[in-house]
Amino acid sequence: MMELERLAPLLTVVDLAAATVFAVTGALVASRKQMDIIGFMWLAVVTGVGGGTVRDLLLGVPVFWVVNPSPVVTCLIAAVVVHFTSHLIQSRYILLLWLDAFGMALVTVAGTAKGLDNGTGAVVAVVMGVITASVGGMIRDILGQEPSIILRREIYVTASVLGACTYVLAVSLGADRTLAALAGIAVASTARVLAIALGWSMPVFRSRPGRSLEQIRKDNEG
Amino acid sequence: MMELERLAPLLTVVDLAAATVFAVTGALVASRKQMDIIGFMWLAVVTGVGGGTVRDLLLGVPVFWVVNPSPVVTCLIAAVVVHFTSHLIQSRYILLLWLDAFGMALVTVAGTAKGLDNGTGAVVAVVMGVITASVGGMIRDILGQEPSIILRREIYVTASVLGACTYVLAVSLGADRTLAALAGIAVASTARVLAIALGWSMPVFRSRPGRSLEQIRKDNEG
Amino acid sequence: MMELERLAPLLTVVDLAAATVFAVTGALVASRKQMDIIGFMWLAVVTGVGGGTVRDLLLGVPVFWVVNPSPVVTCLIAAVVVHFTSHLIQSRYILLLWLDAFGMALVTVAGTAKGLDNGTGAVVAVVMGVITASVGGMIRDILGQEPSIILRREIYVTASVLGACTYVLAVSLGADRTLAALAGIAVASTARVLAIALGWSMPVFRSRPGRSLEQIRKDNEG
Repeated sequence: MMELERLAPLLTVVDLAAATVFAVTGALVASRKQMDIIGFMWLAVVTGVGGGTVRDLLLGVPVFWVVNPSPVVTCLIAAVVVHFTSHLIQSRYILLLWLDAFGMALVTVAGTAKGLDNGTGAVVAVVMGVITASVGGMIRDILGQEPSIILRREIYVTASVLGACTYVLAVSLGADRTLAALAGIAVASTARVLAIALGWSMPVFRSRPGRSLEQIRKDNEG
Repeated sequence: MMELERLAPLLTVVDLAAATVFAVTGALVASRKQMDIIGFMWLAVVTGVGGGTVRDLLLGVPVFWVVNPSPVVTCLIAAVVVHFTSHLIQSRYILLLWLDAFGMALVTVAGTAKGLDNGTGAVVAVVMGVITASVGGMIRDILGQEPSIILRREIYVTASVLGACTYVLAVSLGADRTLAALAGIAVASTARVLAIALGWSMPVFRSRPGRSLEQIRKDNEG
Repeated sequence: MMELERLAPLLTVVDLAAATVFAVTGALVASRKQMDIIGFMWLAVVTGVGGGTVRDLLLGVPVFWVVNPSPVVTCLIAAVVVHFTSHLIQSRYILLLWLDAFGMALVTVAGTAKGLDNGTGAVVAVVMGVITASVGGMIRDILGQEPSIILRREIYVTASVLGACTYVLAVSLGADRTLAALAGIAVASTARVLAIALGWSMPVFRSRPGRSLEQIRKDNEG
């Protein structure tokens, strides 16, 4: 089994790769909305580093890209590349979806580990992992006026929750950190890839047609 | 009169109750949008703890639920309960509105007090109280793509402002903290409950039909 | 050449003026959406101090208006004034656009300088300058449900990037801080004013009609 010290440089590389994959999904939204190159850059950077930024602010630790801006630089490069080659990337979209599944799994576990390393309990650590994986995409969808990920029923956040819980559980059972990370990444990425491949989506429990808060109030008053 | 020390455990209980009531309003938006259970959880947690989170980040103090995650846990439980019983809760919506009025009043005063305790002046303390009461609902409306609270003219933020100002004024006049808190809570919740019961809304001063920034520019150029 | 010490009080005045101009653009969106006065206040404050707030959170320094609330107070005054005089301001919209160009230039350079002063490198400093100038307007557009600035192709963020780069370049070449600031402000405001006067906008590279992520996935699967 590899030791954590030997894994660290590899993780840095993969971490940058995850930010880049997220950035590409942001730049593709900019492409669809026919934004200019500045719009590509905004969406690429926000999607690439947004989740980790919110995580660091909540944990009260220095924001990772303020300390070392390489993730921002790679996101900016991704934005420029996508701006001029979006048709090539669109035709390889399934590949991108799979890379995104792996990126989500990785930043989930990295975010969860950063929570534990900063002394949080299990619940907060899982929340940090899920935030790292999801919040960038949420801000992307708000800025690009796309339907938000939480309005869709695809299995994305669920896969992230499963991966984060696997990591926390493994660590609390005394597993080696590297092993726990590999288990968490495996669970999250497998759940996501299976959901894409098999068309899984989350069930919805509907007791009656939804009404707006406004309508409910009027109905109750009437 | 009760002393602050004896009130503290009671406040913690009521504080959790306020987060839970906010969480239920978030989960009801998820129900209307027919989200899956993960969507219920996002909206419940964001609405329940979002305002206090922004307040703590602005004040530069540790985020309250990162220190002690019980509010997040109660929000998650509220999300699961609402997911399976939303029809029961909708039929008791007026009760929820009144609980929400009390929750808003309580977190307004708690937020204002946290501002003063961290050395802010009166203006910033009032802003902190209003942020604690309102920002969770704002993020809920953005994520759920509902009309934002600031686009509606109902008296909600206004009631929060009145409660926060009452508390700051009472404290600056030398009133006992507990008494000031009770006065602030009474003013905010009474204003909100009266507005609901009597259908009050804010007046709008309209000098002429509104135009978009784009239109104004064109009209000025033409 | 003026010395920085003698420029400081002037900068504070102009800084407040910039927040006020931003606040007026926020209040005009509130006017168009026929919000009540509380809505005017929210949009004025968020637009006036939002960018600098995000910058300070990212840098991990105390938020400027929590330390000294005068910018919030001037934004609130601007909101009240615009609420009752929006027709007068709309008819002077071109003047407002030019003031906004100058305000954008100023806060860009001030934000970039604050980044460098807190030990960031060139890239992060430029990002801080652009965030200070743009994020307030972005939140304004989300809360007011207007098309976001990043969906429009007008030269605004681009002008801010140019000004921030000019300042960082000048400082790195050993220029006096005051001179570098004046150069950055001149470049950003000139680019913005020329873009308004000559109707410049950013080019868009379109390889093929944009498709949604959903569509792309379906097309690839089909």
